[in-house]
Amino acid sequence: MSHAEIGLIGLGVMGSNLALNIAEKGHPIAVYNRTASRTGLFFENAEGLRENIVPCTTLADLVAAIRPPRPIIIMTQAGKAVDEQIAALRKLLSPGDIIIDAGNANFRDTMRRFAELEGSGIEFLGVGVSGGEEGARHGPSIMVGGAKESWHRVEPVLTAIAAAYNGEPCAAWLGPDGAGHFVKTLHNGIEYADMQMIAEVYGVMRDGLGMGPKEIGQVFGRWNEGPLNSYLIEITSAVLAADDPQTGRPMVDVIVDSAGQKGTGRWAVIEAQMMGVPATGIEAAVAARSLSSMRQERDAAERAYGSPVKPIDPADRDALIADIEQALFAAKIGAYAQGFAVMRAASQEFGWDLPMATVARIWRAGCIIRSQFLDTIASAFEAKADLPNLLVSRAFVSMVSKAEPSLRRVVATAATHGLAVPAISSALAYFDAYRLARGTANLIQAQRDFFGAHGFERIDGPGAHHGPWGGHMAG
Amino acid sequence: MSHAEIGLIGLGVMGSNLALNIAEKGHPIAVYNRTASRTGLFFENAEGLRENIVPCTTLADLVAAIRPPRPIIIMTQAGKAVDEQIAALRKLLSPGDIIIDAGNANFRDTMRRFAELEGSGIEFLGVGVSGGEEGARHGPSIMVGGAKESWHRVEPVLTAIAAAYNGEPCAAWLGPDGAGHFVKTLHNGIEYADMQMIAEVYGVMRDGLGMGPKEIGQVFGRWNEGPLNSYLIEITSAVLAADDPQTGRPMVDVIVDSAGQKGTGRWAVIEAQMMGVPATGIEAAVAARSLSSMRQERDAAERAYGSPVKPIDPADRDALIADIEQALFAAKIGAYAQGFAVMRAASQEFGWDLPMATVARIWRAGCIIRSQFLDTIASAFEAKADLPNLLVSRAFVSMVSKAEPSLRRVVATAATHGLAVPAISSALAYFDAYRLARGTANLIQAQRDFFGAHGFERIDGPGAHHGPWGGHMAG
Repeated sequence: MSHAEIGLIGLGVMGSNLALNIAEKGHPIAVYNRTASRTGLFFENAEGLRENIVPCTTLADLVAAIRPPRPIIIMTQAGKAVDEQIAALRKLLSPGDIIIDAGNANFRDTMRRFAELEGSGIEFLGVGVSGGEEGARHGPSIMVGGAKESWHRVEPVLTAIAAAYNGEPCAAWLGPDGAGHFVKTLHNGIEYADMQMIAEVYGVMRDGLGMGPKEIGQVFGRWNEGPLNSYLIEITSAVLAADDPQTGRPMVDVIVDSAGQKGTGRWAVIEAQMMGVPATGIEAAVAARSLSSMRQERDAAERAYGSPVKPIDPADRDALIADIEQALFAAKIGAYAQGFAVMRAASQEFGWDLPMATVARIWRAGCIIRSQFLDTIASAFEAKADLPNLLVSRAFVSMVSKAEPSLRRVVATAATHGLAVPAISSALAYFDAYRLARGTANLIQAQRDFFGAHGFERIDGPGAHHGPWGGHMAG
Repeated sequence: MSHAEIGLIGLGVMGSNLALNIAEKGHPIAVYNRTASRTGLFFENAEGLRENIVPCTTLADLVAAIRPPRPIIIMTQAGKAVDEQIAALRKLLSPGDIIIDAGNANFRDTMRRFAELEGSGIEFLGVGVSGGEEGARHGPSIMVGGAKESWHRVEPVLTAIAAAYNGEPCAAWLGPDGAGHFVKTLHNGIEYADMQMIAEVYGVMRDGLGMGPKEIGQVFGRWNEGPLNSYLIEITSAVLAADDPQTGRPMVDVIVDSAGQKGTGRWAVIEAQMMGVPATGIEAAVAARSLSSMRQERDAAERAYGSPVKPIDPADRDALIADIEQALFAAKIGAYAQGFAVMRAASQEFGWDLPMATVARIWRAGCIIRSQFLDTIASAFEAKADLPNLLVSRAFVSMVSKAEPSLRRVVATAATHGLAVPAISSALAYFDAYRLARGTANLIQAQRDFFGAHGFERIDGPGAHHGPWGGHMAG
């Protein structure tokens, strides 16, 4: 016994794949699952890797199987289950052991767990893992938060199993306590926006242009060769090409149009709100998923109003598709700009000093939003670490300026043809408001002073002022 | 002593005006402020009402001055100050006394305070008061949460000081514990959206049509005679007409374009997120205020990109202004539909059984979003108390259908001319997604199954399914 280098608790889809990945990279791993039968099944199926796997039927066995000081990964559902595992482990672990929560924890829970373990001698890491089941198996993106010394002790294993981009591992220490899980939350928020924008342009082609899934899939396939090149565009092309063996129909046409949401999209929005940073692209995406689950209501509304959709003139088709490619790219930039701005604010708020370029670098491979494009983002932050917003970095100014007319045409076309593009139009509105030096909130300040005596600043001098509002009383 | 009917703590703008309102309606009131000098000043200025006011310099004096059982209103800043006042009062009050928190509390704090006071014999009411300083002085809208019996004991005073709509007082008991403060939070969220949409069309006229404040003010003045008739449209017309005595320039032109936000707009968004109900109009409004405060960033972005604005052809002006009126009305309906949907979800979540028609009725006068339009909303809920969404009530289907083409044209025009209309365009997108029976989330489900084996429902049968995705592995 005691020969495993690391342990893992929770052999669900992600946990199993992560364990196989670790074993395959030559790191002996002890595994444990609350339901012992799953542990047995996992071991049976681990052909070729069994010599690096120690299946354990109790937590005590797991702990005994690992060479101290022990790193133990918890990969269970986020929430109560994690607290229970930590409580159980505390009774068995020794000072210097490291508990690694690799699930989708809310970073506030992670911060609480750091506080609770403080002084116990047991170390803790809050680690975001992205890449879906295939990423977990063959190379995810790994976002680490906690003490830098704890990270250094598990760095060899975590960098070995991570995805690599041009030979550079997509695993990094990002900051203390909740930094890793916060960045993972924002990763997922951006993923929501990315996926929603893709769904929106799918809708424009399907409903506005009357195109079939295969045809649309080919368009995505072509786009994957250009600036949109990314994992999500690639798989969109693949899923649109797939047929349903049962009916022979295109697979997407037999799938119910109701998307679930896990907590991370919502958390990203809530944290953005707490810090007062606009994240309207993620908000639009979360709202779209919520709306998607209200099928009966939507059905009743379509019956009340009729379908909103007006077909687009087929003569405009090719030009529109070219515009959509550019629009999707520009809108995507907007969503990423918002996501990075939220991380920047959090970094200041929580004193994390998040290395933005590193965040972008470890997202270039392994994770769901992986793309070439993230290399451009990494370069932007390398050139200017304190960049307030991606939109103003030189490379992005040039890209967005080029795509801007297309974005305008697509939003206008969608508006006039009854095609809902909430995330894409939010990106345009964000862009137009962000780049307007003289906004319209002066009117809001006037209203607030009128009815609530809130006061306002004057453009020509400091201090709080109140209007005389044409005889009406104010402050 | 002991002759006052009610007490009030906190003589800020809102508290002072509320106290004067109560005294004026013939209810003797004892008042106390932590800074005693303010109490003195308040009493000096209360000419004509002093016989109904008992100024107190200590909390014990305040309590002694009120006839038991004592209702005492706390009107301090929300948060810690309220908890401190409650703690101080608990030492002085007797069973049957009622503490009334009339500030802008987060309803979760209110629920906690109910729990903390439980069993103490001291009753509690969480009361939302809207109407700004003038409303507080002459008739606010009053949203009450707590035990119905507590409400009945203060009902005579609160209905006497409330605004009235056609003789009906705008004060009502809405449900237990946090119901009143929750409704107030959503009132404020809707107010954010309302004000933002007004600011957006101001921007279209100012930047797109090159109109001056006075001209724009006249347009709002005309609109106030039509379906948009409301307090906010009325005061917009007034503030746009006002001149700055210092410079002679239009007042709005000397006001900095940076709007503050208090907690309620943000809370409305966060609660909507917690319940998974779309509130994109409020989200857009909160985001716009956040952006408004990033003046330096916006300035830098305009320098990098140039101004987004392209002037609109003056020949289109009158038609566009007519469209804007309709668009603003339709977008407003969208924001209200979202706000009421959030309240409906909260009512279920917290078991409040909120009387939606009553909520609309007590908003018809007194509060900041007061308008005729709320009478239409009240009627819609009177006709169908469990209406899932305002958009599908008969009256709204007809109004929205009429306004819809204008909304489309305004969003399209704004998009092509670089005029940011985030809240208005979010309303159109919400409307188009809400009324689309077959949405686009089937694609999102396909993607999620592809990368994460999340599974999906089929349109032709129950159960969770997984795709074969063209040879690619999936769960």
